[in-house]
Amino acid sequence: MDVRELAADYAALLAAGKMEEAARKYWAEDVVTREAMPGEWGETRGRAAAVEKGEWWVGNHEVHAIRTEGPFVNGDSFLIIMELDVTPHGGERTQMREIVGYKVADDRVVEERYFY
Amino acid sequence: MDVRELAADYAALLAAGKMEEAARKYWAEDVVTREAMPGEWGETRGRAAAVEKGEWWVGNHEVHAIRTEGPFVNGDSFLIIMELDVTPHGGERTQMREIVGYKVADDRVVEERYFY
Repeated sequence: MDVRELAADYAALLAAGKMEEAARKYWAEDVVTREAMPGEWGETRGRAAAVEKGEWWVGNHEVHAIRTEGPFVNGDSFLIIMELDVTPHGGERTQMREIVGYKVADDRVVEERYFY
Repeated sequence: MDVRELAADYAALLAAGKMEEAARKYWAEDVVTREAMPGEWGETRGRAAAVEKGEWWVGNHEVHAIRTEGPFVNGDSFLIIMELDVTPHGGERTQMREIVGYKVADDRVVEERYFY
């Protein structure tokens, strides 16, 4: 599968709010996720930890809107610009703008990096 | 030097149209550049080749406007969103929107990747 094709499908799923479907369909067993900041979820290793992180995030944020742009592709990697209008539980509503980077190997996402 | 600090200075130079100054100040001797598409300038290795690519580009495009956004940082890497309003010599005026990825080591840019 061409990286550009995978990237387009992945981006379409995110744009439709289908994060879990994108993860189920494309994450490798040994996927690594890296936030820009250290902390409890600063880095996860393996699909189970990445899914747990995703569930924690969904359970602790109210998402008002998601807007994505992309994918932007180079070689084995692609980027998606993501804008989130979100209220963390117990926190203030904020607009976040970040870029998520994905690295692909054997038709699977092996790394996810958050740039901000 | 903190990557975030280097990234901010690099982005400010690009935003001011000072590509050559950014290159002179931050590119490593063995910098590698990677376009998303193959071709004559698909990949360069070393500072001299990267400078030659830059000079070729400047000599073959009329730039009407540049707009940048960023940097977006994660670990040793940063991204800059770039919008170019440009006419290639002998071609049609186009608006390009791309993301440029930079990898840093020892306070120098060691890799530049164009995502589109």
